[in-house]
Amino acid sequence: MILIKIGGGRKINWEYIAEDVAELVKKEKVIIVHGASGIRDEVAKELKAPTRTVVSPSGVSSVYTDQKALDIFLMAYAGLVNKKIVAALQKNGVNAVGLSGVDGRLWEGKRKSNLYVQEGNKTKLITDNLTGKVEKINTHLINLLIKNNYVPVICPPAISHNNEIINTDNDFAVAIMIKELGIKTLISLFEAPGMLEKARDEKSLISIIKRVQIDNYLQFAEGRMKKKLLGAKIAFENGVKIVYWGDGRIKHPIKSVLAGKGTIIN
Amino acid sequence: MILIKIGGGRKINWEYIAEDVAELVKKEKVIIVHGASGIRDEVAKELKAPTRTVVSPSGVSSVYTDQKALDIFLMAYAGLVNKKIVAALQKNGVNAVGLSGVDGRLWEGKRKSNLYVQEGNKTKLITDNLTGKVEKINTHLINLLIKNNYVPVICPPAISHNNEIINTDNDFAVAIMIKELGIKTLISLFEAPGMLEKARDEKSLISIIKRVQIDNYLQFAEGRMKKKLLGAKIAFENGVKIVYWGDGRIKHPIKSVLAGKGTIIN
Repeated sequence: MILIKIGGGRKINWEYIAEDVAELVKKEKVIIVHGASGIRDEVAKELKAPTRTVVSPSGVSSVYTDQKALDIFLMAYAGLVNKKIVAALQKNGVNAVGLSGVDGRLWEGKRKSNLYVQEGNKTKLITDNLTGKVEKINTHLINLLIKNNYVPVICPPAISHNNEIINTDNDFAVAIMIKELGIKTLISLFEAPGMLEKARDEKSLISIIKRVQIDNYLQFAEGRMKKKLLGAKIAFENGVKIVYWGDGRIKHPIKSVLAGKGTIIN
Repeated sequence: MILIKIGGGRKINWEYIAEDVAELVKKEKVIIVHGASGIRDEVAKELKAPTRTVVSPSGVSSVYTDQKALDIFLMAYAGLVNKKIVAALQKNGVNAVGLSGVDGRLWEGKRKSNLYVQEGNKTKLITDNLTGKVEKINTHLINLLIKNNYVPVICPPAISHNNEIINTDNDFAVAIMIKELGIKTLISLFEAPGMLEKARDEKSLISIIKRVQIDNYLQFAEGRMKKKLLGAKIAFENGVKIVYWGDGRIKHPIKSVLAGKGTIIN
Protein backbone atom coordinates (compact mmCIF):
# COMPACT_ATOMS: atom_id res chain seq x y z
CA MET A 1 0.00 0.00 0.00
CA ILE A 2 1.47 3.32 -1.15
CA LEU A 3 0.42 6.66 0.27
CA ILE A 4 0.84 9.58 -2.10
CA LYS A 5 0.79 12.99 -0.49
CA ILE A 6 0.34 15.92 -2.84
CA GLY A 7 0.93 19.55 -1.98
CA GLY A 8 -1.67 22.25 -2.44
CA GLY A 9 0.36 24.59 -4.65
CA ARG A 10 -1.18 26.09 -7.78
CA LYS A 11 1.48 24.65 -10.10
CA ILE A 12 0.79 21.03 -9.16
CA ASN A 13 -0.32 19.27 -12.35
CA TRP A 14 -3.13 16.87 -11.55
CA GLU A 15 -3.49 15.65 -15.13
CA TYR A 16 0.07 14.34 -15.07
CA ILE A 17 -0.33 12.88 -11.59
CA ALA A 18 -3.57 11.12 -12.58
CA GLU A 19 -1.85 9.52 -15.60
CA ASP A 20 0.87 8.06 -13.37
CA VAL A 21 -1.58 6.94 -10.66
CA ALA A 22 -3.47 5.02 -13.38
CA GLU A 23 -0.26 3.02 -14.05
CA LEU A 24 0.57 2.58 -10.37
CA VAL A 25 -2.86 1.17 -9.36
CA LYS A 26 -2.30 -1.75 -11.74
CA LYS A 27 0.39 -3.01 -9.36
CA GLU A 28 -0.26 -1.43 -5.97
CA LYS A 29 -3.02 -0.28 -3.64
CA VAL A 30 -2.95 3.50 -3.45
CA ILE A 31 -4.22 6.17 -1.05
CA ILE A 32 -3.99 9.85 -1.94
CA VAL A 33 -3.87 12.75 0.53
CA HIS A 34 -3.88 16.26 -0.90
CA GLY A 35 -3.76 19.91 0.02
CA ALA A 36 -5.38 22.92 -1.62
CA SER A 37 -3.79 25.93 0.05
CA GLY A 38 -3.18 27.73 -3.27
CA ILE A 39 -6.83 27.69 -4.34
CA ARG A 40 -7.93 28.29 -0.74
CA ASP A 41 -5.91 31.50 -0.60
CA GLU A 42 -7.36 32.65 -3.93
CA VAL A 43 -10.96 31.98 -2.87
CA ALA A 44 -10.31 33.66 0.51
CA LYS A 45 -9.02 36.75 -1.26
CA GLU A 46 -11.98 36.84 -3.66
CA LEU A 47 -14.31 36.57 -0.67
CA LYS A 48 -12.49 39.46 1.04
CA ALA A 49 -11.42 37.25 3.93
CA PRO A 50 -7.74 36.61 3.10
CA THR A 51 -5.97 33.77 4.87
CA ARG A 52 -4.41 35.05 8.11
CA THR A 53 -1.20 33.70 9.54
CA VAL A 54 -0.43 34.13 13.22
CA VAL A 55 2.89 33.68 15.00
CA SER A 56 3.24 32.04 18.42
CA PRO A 57 5.41 33.67 21.12
CA SER A 58 8.08 31.04 20.30
CA GLY A 59 8.05 32.07 16.63
CA VAL A 60 6.07 29.25 15.01
CA SER A 61 3.62 30.51 12.39
CA SER A 62 0.27 28.91 11.66
CA VAL A 63 -2.98 29.70 9.85
CA TYR A 64 -5.68 31.23 12.04
CA THR A 65 -8.97 29.44 11.35
CA ASP A 66 -12.12 31.18 12.51
CA GLN A 67 -15.57 30.11 11.27
CA LYS A 68 -15.33 32.14 8.06
CA ALA A 69 -11.86 30.77 7.29
CA LEU A 70 -13.11 27.24 7.97
CA ASP A 71 -16.05 27.70 5.58
CA ILE A 72 -13.63 28.82 2.87
CA PHE A 73 -11.36 25.89 3.74
CA LEU A 74 -14.27 23.45 3.27
CA MET A 75 -15.22 25.04 -0.04
CA ALA A 76 -11.71 24.94 -1.48
CA TYR A 77 -10.45 21.60 -0.12
CA ALA A 78 -13.48 19.28 0.17
CA GLY A 79 -15.47 20.99 -2.61
CA LEU A 80 -13.52 22.45 -5.49
CA VAL A 81 -10.13 20.73 -5.39
CA ASN A 82 -11.07 17.28 -4.06
CA LYS A 83 -13.77 16.74 -6.68
CA LYS A 84 -11.63 18.01 -9.56
CA ILE A 85 -8.89 15.58 -8.54
CA VAL A 86 -11.43 12.76 -8.40
CA ALA A 87 -12.69 13.66 -11.90
CA ALA A 88 -9.10 13.80 -13.25
CA LEU A 89 -8.45 10.33 -11.82
CA GLN A 90 -11.77 8.98 -13.14
CA LYS A 91 -10.83 10.31 -16.58
CA ASN A 92 -7.76 8.06 -16.40
CA GLY A 93 -9.78 5.02 -15.32
CA VAL A 94 -8.96 5.23 -11.61
CA ASN A 95 -12.07 4.66 -9.49
CA ALA A 96 -11.38 7.48 -7.06
CA VAL A 97 -13.61 8.37 -4.11
CA GLY A 98 -13.06 11.78 -2.51
CA LEU A 99 -13.43 12.10 1.24
CA SER A 100 -12.63 14.70 3.85
CA GLY A 101 -11.42 13.82 7.32
CA VAL A 102 -14.95 14.55 8.55
CA ASP A 103 -16.52 11.73 6.51
CA GLY A 104 -16.93 8.59 8.57
CA ARG A 105 -14.67 10.26 11.18
CA LEU A 106 -11.81 9.40 8.83
CA TRP A 107 -9.46 11.80 10.62
CA GLU A 108 -10.44 12.35 14.22
CA GLY A 109 -8.50 14.62 16.53
CA LYS A 110 -8.34 16.99 19.42
CA ARG A 111 -9.36 20.58 18.91
CA LYS A 112 -6.87 23.17 20.12
CA SER A 113 -9.06 26.23 20.44
CA ASN A 114 -6.67 28.30 22.56
CA LEU A 115 -3.75 29.84 20.76
CA TYR A 116 -1.28 32.39 22.05
CA VAL A 117 -0.19 34.77 19.32
CA GLN A 118 2.48 37.43 19.27
CA GLU A 119 1.45 40.81 17.89
CA GLY A 120 4.39 43.19 18.13
CA ASN A 121 5.20 43.41 21.83
CA LYS A 122 1.88 41.98 22.93
CA THR A 123 0.89 38.36 23.51
CA LYS A 124 -2.78 37.78 22.75
CA LEU A 125 -4.96 34.74 23.48
CA ILE A 126 -7.21 33.53 20.65
CA THR A 127 -9.97 31.19 21.88
CA ASP A 128 -12.00 30.47 18.73
CA ASN A 129 -9.37 28.74 16.66
CA LEU A 130 -10.91 25.81 14.74
CA THR A 131 -7.78 23.70 14.41
CA GLY A 132 -6.51 20.50 15.92
CA LYS A 133 -4.26 17.49 15.59
CA VAL A 134 -5.33 14.11 14.15
CA GLU A 135 -5.06 11.31 16.69
CA LYS A 136 -7.18 8.55 15.19
CA ILE A 137 -7.90 7.15 11.71
CA ASN A 138 -10.98 5.27 10.53
CA THR A 139 -8.92 2.41 9.11
CA HIS A 140 -12.10 0.36 8.60
CA LEU A 141 -13.48 2.79 6.01
CA ILE A 142 -10.16 3.18 4.20
CA ASN A 143 -9.55 -0.57 4.06
CA LEU A 144 -13.16 -1.19 2.97
CA LEU A 145 -12.73 1.12 -0.01
CA ILE A 146 -9.27 -0.14 -0.95
CA LYS A 147 -10.28 -3.80 -0.72
CA ASN A 148 -13.07 -3.00 -3.17
CA ASN A 149 -10.69 -1.33 -5.64
CA TYR A 150 -11.60 2.26 -4.88
CA VAL A 151 -8.81 4.81 -4.49
CA PRO A 152 -9.50 7.08 -1.49
CA VAL A 153 -8.62 10.72 -2.17
CA ILE A 154 -8.48 12.36 1.24
CA CYS A 155 -8.19 15.98 2.34
CA PRO A 156 -8.61 17.97 5.52
CA PRO A 157 -10.50 19.23 7.51
CA ALA A 158 -10.78 16.63 10.27
CA ILE A 159 -13.44 16.15 12.93
CA SER A 160 -12.82 16.73 16.63
CA HIS A 161 -13.76 14.29 19.39
CA ASN A 162 -16.61 16.73 20.10
CA ASN A 163 -17.75 16.74 16.46
CA GLU A 164 -16.42 20.13 15.48
CA ILE A 165 -14.93 20.49 12.01
CA ILE A 166 -11.25 21.38 12.47
CA ASN A 167 -8.41 22.45 10.22
CA THR A 168 -5.43 20.16 10.63
CA ASP A 169 -1.91 19.55 9.44
CA ASN A 170 -1.62 17.06 6.55
CA ASP A 171 1.94 15.97 7.39
CA PHE A 172 0.93 14.89 10.85
CA ALA A 173 -2.29 13.19 9.67
CA VAL A 174 -0.23 11.26 7.10
CA ALA A 175 2.17 10.13 9.83
CA ILE A 176 -0.77 8.71 11.82
CA MET A 177 -2.15 7.00 8.70
CA ILE A 178 1.24 5.37 8.11
CA LYS A 179 1.18 3.97 11.61
CA GLU A 180 -2.41 2.77 11.73
CA LEU A 181 -2.53 1.39 8.16
CA GLY A 182 0.96 -0.11 8.20
CA ILE A 183 2.09 1.85 5.13
CA LYS A 184 5.69 1.18 4.04
CA THR A 185 6.06 3.55 1.05
CA LEU A 186 5.37 7.27 1.08
CA ILE A 187 5.54 9.46 -2.02
CA SER A 188 5.38 13.19 -1.49
CA LEU A 189 4.96 15.53 -4.47
CA PHE A 190 5.24 19.30 -4.27
CA GLU A 191 6.45 22.38 -6.16
CA ALA A 192 10.16 21.55 -6.16
CA PRO A 193 12.29 18.72 -7.58
CA GLY A 194 12.90 17.36 -4.07
CA MET A 195 15.01 18.37 -1.08
CA LEU A 196 17.21 21.29 -2.08
CA GLU A 197 20.57 22.11 -0.53
CA LYS A 198 19.95 25.79 -1.29
CA ALA A 199 16.30 26.78 -1.03
CA ARG A 200 15.03 28.17 -4.37
CA ASP A 201 18.04 26.76 -6.27
CA GLU A 202 16.41 23.86 -8.08
CA LYS A 203 19.78 22.60 -9.29
CA SER A 204 20.92 21.93 -5.71
CA LEU A 205 18.85 18.74 -5.43
CA ILE A 206 19.88 16.24 -2.79
CA SER A 207 19.23 12.80 -4.31
CA ILE A 208 19.59 10.56 -1.29
CA ILE A 209 19.15 11.12 2.40
CA LYS A 210 19.76 8.37 4.92
CA ARG A 211 16.98 8.32 7.49
CA VAL A 212 19.51 8.46 10.32
CA GLN A 213 20.86 11.68 8.82
CA ILE A 214 17.55 13.57 8.63
CA ASP A 215 18.56 15.69 11.61
CA ASN A 216 21.70 16.86 9.80
CA TYR A 217 19.66 17.99 6.81
CA LEU A 218 17.41 20.11 8.95
CA GLN A 219 20.14 22.79 8.66
CA PHE A 220 19.40 23.24 4.93
CA ALA A 221 15.69 23.33 5.48
CA GLU A 222 13.50 26.41 5.66
CA GLY A 223 9.84 26.79 6.54
CA ARG A 224 7.78 24.18 4.72
CA MET A 225 10.78 22.04 3.85
CA LYS A 226 11.67 21.82 7.51
CA LYS A 227 8.12 20.67 8.27
CA LYS A 228 8.39 18.06 5.53
CA LEU A 229 11.66 16.74 6.96
CA LEU A 230 10.15 16.50 10.42
CA GLY A 231 7.13 14.76 8.84
CA ALA A 232 9.46 12.25 7.18
CA LYS A 233 11.21 11.66 10.50
CA ILE A 234 7.91 10.78 12.20
CA ALA A 235 6.91 8.66 9.18
CA PHE A 236 10.03 6.51 9.74
CA GLU A 237 9.36 6.31 13.47
CA ASN A 238 5.86 5.11 12.54
CA GLY A 239 7.12 2.29 10.33
CA VAL A 240 7.59 3.63 6.82
CA LYS A 241 10.55 2.04 4.97
CA ILE A 242 11.12 4.49 2.11
CA VAL A 243 10.09 8.07 1.34
CA TYR A 244 10.18 9.57 -2.15
CA TRP A 245 10.06 13.35 -2.61
CA GLY A 246 9.54 14.80 -6.01
CA ASP A 247 8.16 17.37 -8.39
CA GLY A 248 4.37 17.55 -8.72
CA ARG A 249 4.58 19.96 -11.66
CA ILE A 250 6.24 17.74 -14.27
CA LYS A 251 5.13 15.02 -16.69
CA HIS A 252 5.47 11.56 -15.10
CA PRO A 253 5.90 12.83 -11.55
CA ILE A 254 5.50 9.41 -9.91
CA LYS A 255 7.58 7.45 -12.43
CA SER A 256 10.31 10.05 -11.96
CA VAL A 257 10.49 9.83 -8.17
CA LEU A 258 10.41 6.03 -8.28
CA ALA A 259 13.32 6.17 -10.79
CA GLY A 260 15.33 8.21 -8.28
CA LYS A 261 14.99 11.58 -9.99
CA GLY A 262 13.83 13.31 -6.82
CA THR A 263 15.01 12.80 -3.26
CA ILE A 264 14.94 9.31 -1.76
CA ILE A 265 14.99 9.00 1.99
CA ASN A 266 15.62 5.49 3.29
CA MET B 1 -34.03 1.14 2.84
CA ILE B 2 -35.34 4.70 3.10
CA LEU B 3 -34.16 7.52 0.90
CA ILE B 4 -34.45 10.97 2.47
CA LYS B 5 -34.23 13.86 0.05
CA ILE B 6 -33.65 17.28 1.60
CA GLY B 7 -34.09 20.59 -0.15
CA GLY B 8 -31.38 23.20 -0.38
CA GLY B 9 -33.29 26.09 1.18
CA ARG B 10 -31.64 28.29 3.82
CA LYS B 11 -34.35 27.56 6.41
CA ILE B 12 -33.83 23.81 6.43
CA ASN B 13 -32.79 22.85 9.97
CA TRP B 14 -30.09 20.22 9.80
CA GLU B 15 -29.76 19.90 13.58
CA TYR B 16 -33.39 18.79 13.82
CA ILE B 17 -33.07 16.48 10.82
CA ALA B 18 -29.91 14.88 12.24
CA GLU B 19 -31.67 14.17 15.55
CA ASP B 20 -34.47 12.32 13.75
CA VAL B 21 -32.10 10.44 11.43
CA ALA B 22 -30.29 9.18 14.56
CA GLU B 23 -33.57 7.57 15.68
CA LEU B 24 -34.43 6.24 12.23
CA VAL B 25 -31.09 4.49 11.64
CA LYS B 26 -31.76 2.28 14.67
CA LYS B 27 -34.51 0.57 12.64
CA GLU B 28 -33.81 1.23 8.99
CA LYS B 29 -31.02 1.65 6.46
CA VAL B 30 -30.93 5.26 5.32
CA ILE B 31 -29.55 7.18 2.33
CA ILE B 32 -29.62 10.97 2.28
CA VAL B 33 -29.61 13.16 -0.84
CA HIS B 34 -29.43 16.91 -0.35
CA GLY B 35 -29.41 20.23 -2.15
CA ALA B 36 -27.62 23.48 -1.30
CA SER B 37 -29.10 26.05 -3.69
CA GLY B 38 -29.60 28.64 -0.93
CA ILE B 39 -25.95 28.70 0.11
CA ARG B 40 -24.84 28.30 -3.49
CA ASP B 41 -26.73 31.48 -4.45
CA GLU B 42 -25.21 33.37 -1.51
CA VAL B 43 -21.64 32.30 -2.35
CA ALA B 44 -22.24 33.11 -6.03
CA LYS B 45 -23.39 36.60 -5.11
CA GLU B 46 -20.40 37.13 -2.80
CA LEU B 47 -18.10 36.04 -5.61
CA LYS B 48 -19.81 38.48 -7.98
CA ALA B 49 -21.00 35.67 -10.25
CA PRO B 50 -24.68 35.42 -9.29
CA THR B 51 -26.61 32.31 -10.33
CA ARG B 52 -28.11 32.83 -13.77
CA THR B 53 -31.39 31.29 -14.85
CA VAL B 54 -32.16 30.83 -18.52
CA VAL B 55 -35.53 30.10 -20.14
CA SER B 56 -35.96 27.67 -23.02
CA PRO B 57 -38.06 28.68 -26.07
CA SER B 58 -40.85 26.47 -24.63
CA GLY B 59 -40.77 28.38 -21.34
CA VAL B 60 -38.90 25.96 -19.05
CA SER B 61 -36.37 27.72 -16.82
CA SER B 62 -33.09 26.20 -15.68
CA VAL B 63 -29.80 27.26 -14.13
CA TYR B 64 -27.05 28.07 -16.61
CA THR B 65 -23.85 26.37 -15.48
CA ASP B 66 -20.63 27.60 -17.01
CA GLN B 67 -17.20 26.73 -15.53
CA LYS B 68 -17.34 29.53 -12.93
CA ALA B 69 -20.87 28.53 -11.86
CA LEU B 70 -19.78 24.89 -11.62
CA ASP B 71 -16.80 25.82 -9.43
CA ILE B 72 -19.16 27.68 -7.09
CA PHE B 73 -21.55 24.72 -7.20
CA LEU B 74 -18.75 22.35 -6.12
CA MET B 75 -17.71 24.68 -3.31
CA ALA B 76 -21.23 25.09 -1.91
CA TYR B 77 -22.63 21.58 -2.40
CA ALA B 78 -19.71 19.14 -2.08
CA GLY B 79 -17.66 21.39 0.19
CA LEU B 80 -19.50 23.61 2.60
CA VAL B 81 -22.96 22.08 2.91
CA ASN B 82 -22.19 18.38 2.50
CA LYS B 83 -19.51 18.39 5.19
CA LYS B 84 -21.57 20.43 7.64
CA ILE B 85 -24.43 17.94 7.25
CA VAL B 86 -22.00 15.06 7.84
CA ALA B 87 -20.70 16.76 11.01
CA ALA B 88 -24.27 17.39 12.27
CA LEU B 89 -25.08 13.71 11.75
CA GLN B 90 -21.81 12.59 13.38
CA LYS B 91 -22.68 14.78 16.37
CA ASN B 92 -25.83 12.69 16.74
CA GLY B 93 -23.98 9.39 16.49
CA VAL B 94 -24.79 8.70 12.83
CA ASN B 95 -21.74 7.48 10.93
CA ALA B 96 -22.31 9.63 7.87
CA VAL B 97 -20.05 9.67 4.81
CA GLY B 98 -20.48 12.57 2.40
CA LEU B 99 -20.10 11.93 -1.32
CA SER B 100 -20.80 13.82 -4.49
CA GLY B 101 -22.06 12.16 -7.64
CA VAL B 102 -18.51 12.40 -9.00
CA ASP B 103 -17.05 10.11 -6.31
CA GLY B 104 -16.81 6.54 -7.50
CA ARG B 105 -19.00 7.62 -10.48
CA LEU B 106 -21.88 7.49 -7.99
CA TRP B 107 -24.13 9.46 -10.34
CA GLU B 108 -23.15 9.05 -13.96
CA GLY B 109 -25.00 10.76 -16.76
CA LYS B 110 -25.07 12.32 -20.15
CA ARG B 111 -23.88 15.89 -20.57
CA LYS B 112 -26.25 18.17 -22.42
CA SER B 113 -23.94 20.98 -23.47
CA ASN B 114 -26.24 22.57 -26.05
CA LEU B 115 -29.09 24.63 -24.71
CA TYR B 116 -31.45 26.90 -26.61
CA VAL B 117 -32.42 29.94 -24.58
CA GLN B 118 -34.97 32.62 -25.23
CA GLU B 119 -33.78 36.20 -24.72
CA GLY B 120 -36.60 38.58 -25.57
CA ASN B 121 -37.44 37.88 -29.21
CA LYS B 122 -34.19 36.10 -29.89
CA THR B 123 -33.37 32.41 -29.53
CA LYS B 124 -29.72 31.85 -28.62
CA LEU B 125 -27.69 28.63 -28.57
CA ILE B 126 -25.48 28.06 -25.52
CA THR B 127 -22.84 25.39 -26.11
CA ASP B 128 -20.82 25.38 -22.89
CA ASN B 129 -23.51 24.34 -20.43
CA LEU B 130 -22.08 21.91 -17.84
CA THR B 131 -25.29 20.09 -17.01
CA GLY B 132 -26.72 16.67 -17.67
CA LYS B 133 -29.08 13.93 -16.61
CA VAL B 134 -28.15 11.01 -14.37
CA GLU B 135 -28.57 7.66 -16.13
CA LYS B 136 -26.56 5.27 -13.95
CA ILE B 137 -25.90 4.77 -10.24
CA ASN B 138 -22.89 3.10 -8.60
CA THR B 139 -25.08 0.79 -6.52
CA HIS B 140 -22.00 -1.20 -5.49
CA LEU B 141 -20.49 1.73 -3.60
CA ILE B 142 -23.78 2.71 -1.95
CA ASN B 143 -24.55 -0.85 -0.87
CA LEU B 144 -20.98 -1.34 0.35
CA LEU B 145 -21.28 1.67 2.67
CA ILE B 146 -24.80 0.83 3.86
CA LYS B 147 -23.95 -2.81 4.56
CA ASN B 148 -21.11 -1.54 6.75
CA ASN B 149 -23.40 0.80 8.71
CA TYR B 150 -22.34 4.03 7.08
CA VAL B 151 -25.01 6.51 6.04
CA PRO B 152 -24.24 7.93 2.58
CA VAL B 153 -24.94 11.67 2.31
CA ILE B 154 -25.03 12.39 -1.40
CA CYS B 155 -25.16 15.63 -3.37
CA PRO B 156 -24.67 16.74 -6.95
CA PRO B 157 -22.74 17.37 -9.17
CA ALA B 158 -22.60 14.17 -11.20
CA ILE B 159 -19.96 12.92 -13.65
CA SER B 160 -20.58 12.57 -17.39
CA HIS B 161 -19.76 9.47 -19.43
CA ASN B 162 -16.81 11.54 -20.72
CA ASN B 163 -15.66 12.42 -17.18
CA GLU B 164 -16.82 16.01 -17.09
CA ILE B 165 -18.28 17.28 -13.84
CA ILE B 166 -21.92 18.19 -14.54
CA ASN B 167 -24.68 19.91 -12.64
CA THR B 168 -27.77 17.73 -12.48
CA ASP B 169 -31.33 17.58 -11.20
CA ASN B 170 -31.70 15.91 -7.78
CA ASP B 171 -35.30 14.80 -8.33
CA PHE B 172 -34.36 12.85 -11.41
CA ALA B 173 -31.22 11.37 -9.82
CA VAL B 174 -33.34 10.24 -6.86
CA ALA B 175 -35.81 8.55 -9.23
CA ILE B 176 -32.95 6.56 -10.79
CA MET B 177 -31.63 5.63 -7.33
CA ILE B 178 -35.08 4.34 -6.36
CA LYS B 179 -35.10 2.11 -9.41
CA GLU B 180 -31.57 0.77 -9.18
CA LEU B 181 -31.50 0.33 -5.39
CA GLY B 182 -35.07 -0.98 -5.07
CA ILE B 183 -36.07 1.73 -2.60
CA LYS B 184 -39.70 1.53 -1.42
CA THR B 185 -39.95 4.57 0.88
CA LEU B 186 -39.08 8.13 -0.07
CA ILE B 187 -39.14 11.04 2.39
CA SER B 188 -38.81 14.51 0.93
CA LEU B 189 -38.27 17.50 3.24
CA PHE B 190 -38.37 21.11 2.08
CA GLU B 191 -39.42 24.61 3.13
CA ALA B 192 -43.18 23.98 3.31
CA PRO B 193 -45.41 21.68 5.38
CA GLY B 194 -46.12 19.52 2.31
CA MET B 195 -48.19 19.85 -0.85
CA LEU B 196 -50.23 23.03 -0.63
CA GLU B 197 -53.56 23.58 -2.38
CA LYS B 198 -52.75 27.28 -2.57
CA ALA B 199 -49.07 28.03 -3.03
CA ARG B 200 -47.73 30.15 -0.15
CA ASP B 201 -50.80 29.38 2.04
CA GLU B 202 -49.30 26.96 4.52
CA LYS B 203 -52.73 26.20 5.98
CA SER B 204 -53.91 24.72 2.69
CA LEU B 205 -51.96 21.47 3.23
CA ILE B 206 -53.14 18.44 1.30
CA SER B 207 -52.65 15.46 3.63
CA ILE B 208 -53.14 12.55 1.28
CA ILE B 209 -52.68 12.16 -2.44
CA LYS B 210 -53.40 8.89 -4.19
CA ARG B 211 -50.66 8.08 -6.64
CA VAL B 212 -53.17 7.62 -9.44
CA GLN B 213 -54.38 11.16 -8.82
CA ILE B 214 -50.97 12.89 -9.07
CA ASP B 215 -51.88 14.24 -12.50
CA ASN B 216 -54.96 15.99 -11.07
CA TYR B 217 -52.85 17.73 -8.44
CA LEU B 218 -50.51 19.13 -11.01
CA GLN B 219 -53.11 21.93 -11.44
CA PHE B 220 -52.34 23.26 -7.93
CA ALA B 221 -48.64 23.02 -8.46
CA GLU B 222 -46.32 25.86 -9.38
CA GLY B 223 -42.65 25.85 -10.30
CA ARG B 224 -40.71 23.70 -7.87
CA MET B 225 -43.80 21.95 -6.50
CA LYS B 226 -44.70 20.86 -10.03
CA LYS B 227 -41.21 19.41 -10.44
CA LYS B 228 -41.58 17.59 -7.11
CA LEU B 229 -44.92 16.08 -8.19
CA LEU B 230 -43.43 14.92 -11.47
CA GLY B 231 -40.50 13.51 -9.48
CA ALA B 232 -42.96 11.60 -7.27
CA LYS B 233 -44.74 10.27 -10.34
CA ILE B 234 -41.49 8.86 -11.75
CA ALA B 235 -40.60 7.50 -8.28
CA PHE B 236 -43.81 5.42 -8.30
CA GLU B 237 -43.16 4.27 -11.86
CA ASN B 238 -39.72 3.19 -10.63
CA GLY B 239 -41.11 1.08 -7.78
CA VAL B 240 -41.49 3.29 -4.73
CA LYS B 241 -44.51 2.34 -2.56
CA ILE B 242 -44.95 5.45 -0.42
CA VAL B 243 -43.76 9.05 -0.56
CA TYR B 244 -43.77 11.39 2.45
CA TRP B 245 -43.48 15.15 1.94
CA GLY B 246 -42.87 17.40 4.88
CA ASP B 247 -41.35 20.38 6.54
CA GLY B 248 -37.57 20.49 6.84
CA ARG B 249 -37.65 23.57 9.08
CA ILE B 250 -39.40 22.15 12.16
CA LYS B 251 -38.40 20.08 15.18
CA HIS B 252 -38.91 16.35 14.50
CA PRO B 253 -39.29 16.71 10.76
CA ILE B 254 -39.06 12.98 10.03
CA LYS B 255 -41.22 11.79 12.94
CA SER B 256 -43.84 14.32 11.80
CA VAL B 257 -44.03 13.16 8.20
CA LEU B 258 -44.12 9.51 9.24
CA ALA B 259 -47.01 10.40 11.61
CA GLY B 260 -48.94 11.83 8.66
CA LYS B 261 -48.44 15.51 9.47
CA GLY B 262 -47.22 16.35 5.99
CA THR B 263 -48.43 15.01 2.66
CA ILE B 264 -48.54 11.27 2.09
CA ILE B 265 -48.61 10.01 -1.48
CA ASN B 266 -49.43 6.33 -1.87
